[in-house]
Amino acid sequence: MMNPTAEIITIGDEILIGQTIDTNAAWVGEHLSEIGIPVNRIISISDQPGEIRLSLQESLNRSDLVLITGGLGPTNDDRTKKTLCDFFQSRLIPDPIILQDIEQLLASRNVPVNPLNRDQALVPDNCRVIRNQAGTAPGMWFEREGKVVISMPGVPYEMISMMESSVIPALKDVFKVPVILQRTIMITGIAESVLASRIRTWEKNLPAGFSLAYLPSPGIVKLRITARGGDAGAKLTEIDGLIHSLREIIPDAIYGYDEITLEETIGQLLMANGLTVVTAESCTGGAIASLITGVPGSSSWYLGSIVAYANDLKEKLLGVEPDSISRFGAVSREVVEQMAIQARIRMGADYAIAVSGIAGPDGGTADKPVGTVWIAVSGASGTGSELFRFGEHRGRNIRKASLAALNMLRIRILKETAGTRPKY
Amino acid sequence: MMNPTAEIITIGDEILIGQTIDTNAAWVGEHLSEIGIPVNRIISISDQPGEIRLSLQESLNRSDLVLITGGLGPTNDDRTKKTLCDFFQSRLIPDPIILQDIEQLLASRNVPVNPLNRDQALVPDNCRVIRNQAGTAPGMWFEREGKVVISMPGVPYEMISMMESSVIPALKDVFKVPVILQRTIMITGIAESVLASRIRTWEKNLPAGFSLAYLPSPGIVKLRITARGGDAGAKLTEIDGLIHSLREIIPDAIYGYDEITLEETIGQLLMANGLTVVTAESCTGGAIASLITGVPGSSSWYLGSIVAYANDLKEKLLGVEPDSISRFGAVSREVVEQMAIQARIRMGADYAIAVSGIAGPDGGTADKPVGTVWIAVSGASGTGSELFRFGEHRGRNIRKASLAALNMLRIRILKETAGTRPKY
Repeated sequence: MMNPTAEIITIGDEILIGQTIDTNAAWVGEHLSEIGIPVNRIISISDQPGEIRLSLQESLNRSDLVLITGGLGPTNDDRTKKTLCDFFQSRLIPDPIILQDIEQLLASRNVPVNPLNRDQALVPDNCRVIRNQAGTAPGMWFEREGKVVISMPGVPYEMISMMESSVIPALKDVFKVPVILQRTIMITGIAESVLASRIRTWEKNLPAGFSLAYLPSPGIVKLRITARGGDAGAKLTEIDGLIHSLREIIPDAIYGYDEITLEETIGQLLMANGLTVVTAESCTGGAIASLITGVPGSSSWYLGSIVAYANDLKEKLLGVEPDSISRFGAVSREVVEQMAIQARIRMGADYAIAVSGIAGPDGGTADKPVGTVWIAVSGASGTGSELFRFGEHRGRNIRKASLAALNMLRIRILKETAGTRPKY
Repeated sequence: MMNPTAEIITIGDEILIGQTIDTNAAWVGEHLSEIGIPVNRIISISDQPGEIRLSLQESLNRSDLVLITGGLGPTNDDRTKKTLCDFFQSRLIPDPIILQDIEQLLASRNVPVNPLNRDQALVPDNCRVIRNQAGTAPGMWFEREGKVVISMPGVPYEMISMMESSVIPALKDVFKVPVILQRTIMITGIAESVLASRIRTWEKNLPAGFSLAYLPSPGIVKLRITARGGDAGAKLTEIDGLIHSLREIIPDAIYGYDEITLEETIGQLLMANGLTVVTAESCTGGAIASLITGVPGSSSWYLGSIVAYANDLKEKLLGVEPDSISRFGAVSREVVEQMAIQARIRMGADYAIAVSGIAGPDGGTADKPVGTVWIAVSGASGTGSELFRFGEHRGRNIRKASLAALNMLRIRILKETAGTRPKY
């Protein structure tokens, strides 16, 4: 089918009363868009059979594909399977493979199989059954007059595993979707509006069939290039060329591709060069350490942090000169550079990052308003620092300062290990 | 009107392609439920006039109240206002108060007023205009045949500010909603299933008109008591009594009420007693410091942290005996207690928390599998520690260990400052 359209129905009272934020709809919407099937509408309803039947009929009247999530658990609250059976005039029959899947999954969790679980192996006789690798409720794929209805569990990781392993490949096949290629360019250290004006000409000259989306979040902008139709190999080469010319316009701002985090990028750089880093944090209060140690395996390149939140700990633990604090203030080039140098020496690492600033809401002065942050990076070849002015919001200031500090380190490592700089 | 029902329409392509997760619908759904107006359906659509008109008509056919978010920005993409004008046969007229609001808001941000902003002060002549304290797009309240349609901007904090200051009070008035009282009890240190069995009898004996919801997240369970109808004063007294009897069943597990965080609770306890705390973190890698310093004003009760991720930093920065690490391992009672004692002394605080464990995915052994975590709390009166076994997932292990450590500190402070223990 050419140019199919889709709707998503998410089932569950917990969505309607705002107890659960509907992340499933966003995930499905994103991944259908990626394979060129636009979503026209997302509908959230309760698990009442009447509501399910009505919404499904309405969606089928408007669209070619309906994806349903939720309403497939083992308890009485979940009436979706029965309602779908009525809708498609199916009979429930036991599926031995699904029963085996359920038994194996529960055995691996040391949970006995109960009658409710056994009922989950009953499936409509006229649907394609979708195996669930992460839970006990199978998915169902119905077809009627060339239109497709797919029902999946509401537990996000079960739904995602089913979509990735079975549903998306099958949809590509059934709907003969056009070739769509995407590359996401991860950018930091430059505001969205500045970025947009810097790359305006590049963006205007994107070839036909290519489109660009800006996806901003505090401290990071993702640029997504999408190419539609034509030969995949040729398009990939074109995307590479576009990224190459983009790198010439904003050489330092691109830190990676395809959803990699800044802390993962730094880990890769340090590991590739056998180097280590430590941190000395004041206003970020452990947020940088926490980002870094969120990366699995970070213990091979990250040694630790001194979070000197109180000024006297800057002296006691980091040896900052009391005189520097009283003369220049804790938020100053002098103090933050001493913090970085001492952290590097005392913890014995190749690099140290230090941050001192005013996160807010209190502590600002006319001279140093809330959002003022000094960041230093120290290494064997020397110590450099930079002054930032973020905004009013404590949480965003901490986040932006953490990312800015990681980015200063990234650029420093790249300069000092030029041979390992990825070509793009 | 008695027993009104509502629908929510969220407008924006960014929702359909999964670029934005629809948090507005969840917020509105939660707050309508709280005032006794159930949400029957949530619909997300693109900003095409035809789609908006059709969905609005369908929702009005089914429900008494339709809340629309999104599609009110200053750019061309936003067609909602024009579509609503056509739908309600309105004429756009300038509103001098709204224009003044816009001018003042932009002046406070040092942004000049452009023609697009001026157009935002044009409002339908037959709606009640809702002022926007946080942005430039006003909201609109239309009525037709006793039904209400409210259109608000899609920027979450603008929508929330409008709902809280204007819309919710007006809805309570128009729809004469029954009295609904809610209290949320914040619980930690006990799994949801264990909690449910411990309080089963208490839950069964809830008086008529009271209901209970379990809202679990990793490490924390919220219990929400809802009372409907009747006299508000009497119901409040009854809720107090219910909480009082609940506290007798699970005295240590309730850490606070109404969405307070564990770190905020600890801050209040320490401030009330003029006490301070520091942390020494290994597997949590700064996550506890980061939670604590996320609380505004935490510098008055939190001094800092030593994140000794590498073992030799446990020796260098915390004076842990090398012999203890080689004999018992870094994840042991001996090491974690030394970390706590030394952190307290070296940083000069009343209390210290220390954590050492295996967050995963690597580093587990048969003896100490991934998820094994030792936590110690040290104070002037002594040092105590506890062994925890969390799960397989790195991020959840870090989160659960952080909360467990904060909770051990909370219980310790309560025991040592018995006089200040809140009665409930």
